[in-house]
Amino acid sequence: MRIHLGPGHDEHLAAAIVSGGGTLSELDEADALVWDGSAEEFPDLPDRVRWVQLTYAGIEPFFRAGVIDDRRLWANASGVYADNVAEYAVGALLVGLRQFHASVAAKRWTKDVLDPRVRTLHGSTVAIVGCGGIGRAMIPRLHALGASVVAVNRSGRPVDGAKVTLPADRTSEVWSMADHFVVAAPATAETDHLVDAAALAAMPGSAWLVNVARGNLVDTDALVKALGDGAIAGAVLDVTDPEPLPDGHPLWDLDNAVITPHIANTRSRLTQTFAPTLEENVRRFAAGEELIARVDPNAGY
Amino acid sequence: MRIHLGPGHDEHLAAAIVSGGGTLSELDEADALVWDGSAEEFPDLPDRVRWVQLTYAGIEPFFRAGVIDDRRLWANASGVYADNVAEYAVGALLVGLRQFHASVAAKRWTKDVLDPRVRTLHGSTVAIVGCGGIGRAMIPRLHALGASVVAVNRSGRPVDGAKVTLPADRTSEVWSMADHFVVAAPATAETDHLVDAAALAAMPGSAWLVNVARGNLVDTDALVKALGDGAIAGAVLDVTDPEPLPDGHPLWDLDNAVITPHIANTRSRLTQTFAPTLEENVRRFAAGEELIARVDPNAGY
Repeated sequence: MRIHLGPGHDEHLAAAIVSGGGTLSELDEADALVWDGSAEEFPDLPDRVRWVQLTYAGIEPFFRAGVIDDRRLWANASGVYADNVAEYAVGALLVGLRQFHASVAAKRWTKDVLDPRVRTLHGSTVAIVGCGGIGRAMIPRLHALGASVVAVNRSGRPVDGAKVTLPADRTSEVWSMADHFVVAAPATAETDHLVDAAALAAMPGSAWLVNVARGNLVDTDALVKALGDGAIAGAVLDVTDPEPLPDGHPLWDLDNAVITPHIANTRSRLTQTFAPTLEENVRRFAAGEELIARVDPNAGY
Repeated sequence: MRIHLGPGHDEHLAAAIVSGGGTLSELDEADALVWDGSAEEFPDLPDRVRWVQLTYAGIEPFFRAGVIDDRRLWANASGVYADNVAEYAVGALLVGLRQFHASVAAKRWTKDVLDPRVRTLHGSTVAIVGCGGIGRAMIPRLHALGASVVAVNRSGRPVDGAKVTLPADRTSEVWSMADHFVVAAPATAETDHLVDAAALAAMPGSAWLVNVARGNLVDTDALVKALGDGAIAGAVLDVTDPEPLPDGHPLWDLDNAVITPHIANTRSRLTQTFAPTLEENVRRFAAGEELIARVDPNAGY
């Protein structure tokens, strides 16, 4: 089986293709394409390409660009980076609750100010809105830290370890059911501005909001207002709208907004993390087996 | 049984004394003293006081002030705040490894700089030096996050969940056995400057050091040098030497030093957290049973 790797030659991905039983080839002779680039650069596909493997977990730019068709198999990296992002999200909650962000910003000893603001994750309830692979990876971590979990997913089918699971059409109820909120839903038309002014107003005043999904799932203007008014305690955002967040944006000036530059899953280690999954998918494709993280072109993820 | 509460009247502690079966009284009529103040303010004790309950876990100032004698029972709050401090320590590791501190300090989108610096706790080994109550509370949290643990304690008696336990007299070996280090040992003559220049030199260059014990367990001058030279990746200190860390101290200027103002266990919630233990100790003292967290005047903690 001949596989084209593009746009560049990544050593981790190339080794995984060979280990899985594939042969590296040019695109016009390839049975499959492993694509580690952007949607904008995506090539015209010869008909003989029967499988496209993308290396990202969030692939909405590929849908928007119209490159994903139903004439071949598509797979993404959904779930592969879940442990990594879950670790970030737990860290993000602790950053806010334990006032690490304020300690770093203060650059002096301000115990009188910070001591009364400290809260603990232990004993709290965390809602995971869009509880897929990342959310499921968060649950044992949160349990070990003494927190309980409320989950929201598309179907409402109970998530193991969550004390309550709500279906997506009841998302509006979740904002008053938890102490803190992690947004981890796929970016689709339905999830745009999922966290809007009404959601922020319904959260407890002591709530921390973490976004590890996509920037547009949170209404940025509404969030800036809520943070400025103290309507919630704070937000940790690894993704923003707009992204990258430009210099001078009001979010940078809020001392209860922690912005990390899309590093919950890091580009620099991405292909290394993804390699074992790719190797297995190469093997499965050759054997005619169901692929890991096959994309549903109709669902949009 | 009559118990004096001082130096002030804390409502949580007073309620716990009464719930445990005690009666609040003046010091000169008391059988026991519950002391929520400093060593400097500590009163002269009438002979009839047979038990002193301190509300702190670290009580070396009381030893230094010479108020702890062997003529009565003493108890402290060792272990009571362990969950709280363990949560902080896990958060501290994540702050450093996931570059939250650098994101906060940057106040702009610096993905190119920060992405390659991100490391994960998952798959790493954390050494807990002084693995008592706090360390034992850290272990299930670290395991859920995919880290393994090496422990150092006084006796070397194996700690549940640690893959290796070293006795304190082999501490010098631990610095090359783990990726990251949490100092949680009691402050005694033996642990002063436990983390010295040699220890810092033996750690991996990618190591994060967390101190939740007492400031003098780390040689501050050696740490400033190691952080400035990049000999280790960074340090998160909730306790410092000197403490409070004065304005202008070189630690404030290091971008890989995260200083929090002794808030791993917060004064503002301390008595509330301690109240259930106090209630139980009042009951045990009245019944002649062994106290929780009885102090050994000879060991110094």
